Amino acid sequence: MSKVILDVSMSLDGFIAGPNDGPDQSLGENGHLLVAWFFGDQSEADAAIARETGESTGAYVMGRRMYDIGEGPNGWGDGGPNGTVPVFVLCHEPRESFIKASGTPFTFVSDGIVSALDKAKAAAGDKDVLLMGANTAQQYLKAGLVDELLIHLVPVLLGGGLRVFDRLGPGYVQLEKPIVVDSTGVTHLRYRIPK
Amino acid sequence: MSKVILDVSMSLDGFIAGPNDGPDQSLGENGHLLVAWFFGDQSEADAAIARETGESTGAYVMGRRMYDIGEGPNGWGDGGPNGTVPVFVLCHEPRESFIKASGTPFTFVSDGIVSALDKAKAAAGDKDVLLMGANTAQQYLKAGLVDELLIHLVPVLLGGGLRVFDRLGPGYVQLEKPIVVDSTGVTHLRYRIPK
Repeated sequence: MSKVILDVSMSLDGFIAGPNDGPDQSLGENGHLLVAWFFGDQSEADAAIARETGESTGAYVMGRRMYDIGEGPNGWGDGGPNGTVPVFVLCHEPRESFIKASGTPFTFVSDGIVSALDKAKAAAGDKDVLLMGANTAQQYLKAGLVDELLIHLVPVLLGGGLRVFDRLGPGYVQLEKPIVVDSTGVTHLRYRIPK
Repeated sequence: MSKVILDVSMSLDGFIAGPNDGPDQSLGENGHLLVAWFFGDQSEADAAIARETGESTGAYVMGRRMYDIGEGPNGWGDGGPNGTVPVFVLCHEPRESFIKASGTPFTFVSDGIVSALDKAKAAAGDKDVLLMGANTAQQYLKAGLVDELLIHLVPVLLGGGLRVFDRLGPGYVQLEKPIVVDSTGVTHLRYRIPK
């Protein structure tokens, strides 16, 4: 069944980008260390996780900032984050949707996170909707709309940067026991959020 | 050989105490969820980790705040955090050291973290020195004096509180591949910090 998944590579101190991130340095200072497991020499376990996630994802939801980075010079190039898998971009102002020459559809959604998720779910069918970016993650977590957290815990302390779990506010969310995949350094943790 | 270990129970969002911690509520709101694995029904893996740590610890270093909590009504009672294992308390003003009736020695150190660690190492002999508390952890991490991080990662999002990895500042610390112990919910992660 289709799930809504937050998928992030996070340092042990909680950052998904280092300090001073921007168009020229999308993951901030030393942020490349967070994704080395994905873009570098993958272990068998890393490759399996990456492949499974790629295959099971039917749509992406991200913020405007992540979209701008993806479309930037060091971004995803001709397609989207994952070939022709549809991308839904949360934004404040209406903007025309389009389909890239490669076939990747980009849809801009300015009427809220629920609307964006509904559209993404419709596009994903039986597959999962993947949330990208700290701000997007926080909005969906606060609204209780996330089914699963897939955390790639990277053995590094970045000392500063962009936190994914921030500004969630009072109360707490109990997670289920994670599925743990111990890889070559990175620990992959999959938590279900009970409803 | 004797090691300097930071040992914390941390929520997935990075907190070692919930919001509004104080003498009456030493771990803050919902903070008891962080230590339920230790004080509640322990799995075999949990019990083994707790026992090994207890047996291998020869001295504790903590801040004044942690000491006040420990000595408070919901603290460690007659002894210290671990029977008669010596405790070294970082503080700003000199204060007389003492030995409790139970036999636990408490030493107050006002001439800096290096001095406190030297004293703790001398007391610990071949055993390890355990650092307690967020502020103490941050000071020793910044000074590069920590050998190992033992993180008990608890499957909960607290949404706010006291972060252990905070204010570390620029640069990064690469950790070695952790030893991962997947228990009933809590994931125990032991990282060595290369020198």
